[in-house]
Amino acid sequence: MLVESLRDAVLEANLEIQRQGLVLYTFGNASGIDRQQGLVAIKPSGVPYEKLKASDLVITDLDGKVVEGTLNPSSDLATHLLLYREFPTIGGVVHTHSEFGTSWAQAGLPIPCYGTTHADYFRGDIPVTPPLTDEQIETAYELNTGKVIVERFRSLDPLATPGVLVAGHAPFAWGRTAAAAAHNAVVLEYIARMAFRGILINPQMTQVSAALQRKHYERKHGPKATYGQR
Amino acid sequence: MLVESLRDAVLEANLEIQRQGLVLYTFGNASGIDRQQGLVAIKPSGVPYEKLKASDLVITDLDGKVVEGTLNPSSDLATHLLLYREFPTIGGVVHTHSEFGTSWAQAGLPIPCYGTTHADYFRGDIPVTPPLTDEQIETAYELNTGKVIVERFRSLDPLATPGVLVAGHAPFAWGRTAAAAAHNAVVLEYIARMAFRGILINPQMTQVSAALQRKHYERKHGPKATYGQR
Amino acid sequence: MLVESLRDAVLEANLEIQRQGLVLYTFGNASGIDRQQGLVAIKPSGVPYEKLKASDLVITDLDGKVVEGTLNPSSDLATHLLLYREFPTIGGVVHTHSEFGTSWAQAGLPIPCYGTTHADYFRGDIPVTPPLTDEQIETAYELNTGKVIVERFRSLDPLATPGVLVAGHAPFAWGRTAAAAAHNAVVLEYIARMAFRGILINPQMTQVSAALQRKHYERKHGPKATYGQR
Amino acid sequence: MLVESLRDAVLEANLEIQRQGLVLYTFGNASGIDRQQGLVAIKPSGVPYEKLKASDLVITDLDGKVVEGTLNPSSDLATHLLLYREFPTIGGVVHTHSEFGTSWAQAGLPIPCYGTTHADYFRGDIPVTPPLTDEQIETAYELNTGKVIVERFRSLDPLATPGVLVAGHAPFAWGRTAAAAAHNAVVLEYIARMAFRGILINPQMTQVSAALQRKHYERKHGPKATYGQR
Repeated sequence: MLVESLRDAVLEANLEIQRQGLVLYTFGNASGIDRQQGLVAIKPSGVPYEKLKASDLVITDLDGKVVEGTLNPSSDLATHLLLYREFPTIGGVVHTHSEFGTSWAQAGLPIPCYGTTHADYFRGDIPVTPPLTDEQIETAYELNTGKVIVERFRSLDPLATPGVLVAGHAPFAWGRTAAAAAHNAVVLEYIARMAFRGILINPQMTQVSAALQRKHYERKHGPKATYGQR
Repeated sequence: MLVESLRDAVLEANLEIQRQGLVLYTFGNASGIDRQQGLVAIKPSGVPYEKLKASDLVITDLDGKVVEGTLNPSSDLATHLLLYREFPTIGGVVHTHSEFGTSWAQAGLPIPCYGTTHADYFRGDIPVTPPLTDEQIETAYELNTGKVIVERFRSLDPLATPGVLVAGHAPFAWGRTAAAAAHNAVVLEYIARMAFRGILINPQMTQVSAALQRKHYERKHGPKATYGQR
Repeated sequence: MLVESLRDAVLEANLEIQRQGLVLYTFGNASGIDRQQGLVAIKPSGVPYEKLKASDLVITDLDGKVVEGTLNPSSDLATHLLLYREFPTIGGVVHTHSEFGTSWAQAGLPIPCYGTTHADYFRGDIPVTPPLTDEQIETAYELNTGKVIVERFRSLDPLATPGVLVAGHAPFAWGRTAAAAAHNAVVLEYIARMAFRGILINPQMTQVSAALQRKHYERKHGPKATYGQR
Repeated sequence: MLVESLRDAVLEANLEIQRQGLVLYTFGNASGIDRQQGLVAIKPSGVPYEKLKASDLVITDLDGKVVEGTLNPSSDLATHLLLYREFPTIGGVVHTHSEFGTSWAQAGLPIPCYGTTHADYFRGDIPVTPPLTDEQIETAYELNTGKVIVERFRSLDPLATPGVLVAGHAPFAWGRTAAAAAHNAVVLEYIARMAFRGILINPQMTQVSAALQRKHYERKHGPKATYGQR
């Protein structure tokens, strides 16, 4: 029963990143977790989004043991699982090669908080990891991708900064649910597009004031949020 | 009766900014005013455009008191209301985080009149406000956003320059009606895209002559306008 | 009879520039000429493309006298007519504010022949006019827009270079027919997009060799053309 | 019989490059080969993709003699045929003027391996040919286009680097099948877009480590591939 609604939510998150133009062909993957049962649902590897059904999703435990499903899970499974183990407040993870987020990741630079759209979703920079070392690449590459992310978040709250750029690779985003993770992945791409254009318009552009960052973040999040219908 | 047609016009303005690709998710908001009744209709906060109905719009007076509606108004209501109080010739206000307009706003630079497309709609620069001070941000932020706009327009005619970039934030546009405000928001974004590309093609690009700016503005506006069907 | 097929061809050219994303709202206009009757059909001013019908087109003679139609012709009529009078081999004219062509026009720079896509359609640069003087702007502006184009083409063959950038304004394109004019306007925009990106990738980029320009132009045009079905 | 399935596969490859936005009008062409029969199917020249039928494809032998079909083959036929003769492992070739791939080709620069999306498909740079000499252009131009590609691949494995930029012209891509060639052409364009943005974000950007390039290439290809369903 619970697994069925987890499947539905994760299917929907996968479809959302495609609808919003974040994926080409079979690139990218979304997962979600049921914390009570310790079960994760993730996109199978290499399956086109147009054909993806809830029953195609692969169900694993937090160690990656397949519990349900006949297809191979996404090759990035080990990264997702490490994020679930290390970030206990998150319920969904999305990985894409979305164009502008990936361009920043390949450029190896974090995205500073250049405006209120960014501040509405991310506190401070969208950080970038250091490049993986050869050793990290050659042994347990996907697990080590998770490790460099976790290391980068040593002093950050994953829910206040719900995404990261893996250097030379692409973004990962997350959130309290699979739907929130997909939403944050879409907004990260939107922010990345505007930051790209801004630095070309004004190479001296600086991030907005701490006061403005705080104000916008708190309008949408936290105890005094005023945005939306409550 | 009048309120119904105000609702319809404001719904249509909200739908127009979505159709034209100016909004992601629930970003942005359009409002309109009935000057005779002193009533404003505005998008409710955080409601998806796909689901927005005329009856969802929130009706307030010019002080922000909700007269009709059960949903929370847009969190930017106080900015809209100040613009209506200070710019008596306008009938509609549109706020978006449209990609290129926002990129210029984040870059903190006005958009000079680089060509006739711009001159057809805006006399002179599309201005940018100064950044809000910490004090302006921390107390009555949305009202102060309106105040820095009004201050920037001290010597400008809001109908001849129907939009502004709020530094570090995003554009606001307006017009005689909600429909005109949406139209101007769409054109502002189009102008912002071309200005972005132009300065990259030719960093020495200058604005067009005062004579050309005047000619194009007057072809579309003012007593001797020749554009369109009259 | 002939006028009906002229109307149909010009309607189709107007619809084509919209289908290909070259116009926002009512921007732009296409016309065609029946040389035998000396009649021109042109888009009426300010009419949305979605609603445009063949019967809305305005029929004028080469001096701009309206022969058929109740709507005002495009405000750029005088430019179209001068081009028809001065370039006797052309049968259609298209004016748009397409994004990249306009960005180059605003930047005031010609588009050098950076590759074979360009060479397939335009011999040499896509030229840019000088800016109009104040006097040219203030008296008979639209006619003078045509005059600076014609002046720029003093030593060019309009059919071998079927378009131009009017400085600070936007592109005009033309061809043997209204359909060819629309096609060339679309290709001009495509070339403008790639030239924009190329100069950012490699600021030292140079035009391709005269031999390559000639080869590609002649594959598509002229007595030994091998492209397409003949 | 075999020819029918070759026609179907090549039609599908042609339609795919249009669906994915790689072609304007009749630009571009895809072909495929049946190695056993020594027959190639290729798009006819100048036929719109919307109207293309399997029966329109032209069937030639490896020397370009038309075996079936009444239409003229693509004017780039000689390039395709040389690639089939020289690269015995490939089964399909796609040529497009896709916007970003062509922008890099016109800029005359190879695309370095800036990230994992690239490494998933191409080992090392996407190479660029030298410009053709005047003599190569003036005699047997299309054949010589193939020759400069083959020359550039003297020390490269065409299946590990399934595409190239022809300087001043545009990309060619290929693969084991016509479908793979189209897929690689689409991915090449995606990589070109991200590389363009990356070098503007960070002009000092460098390619990713050899270890990361190898890891990603081998995840998708080769004996230990883990991507997808097997």
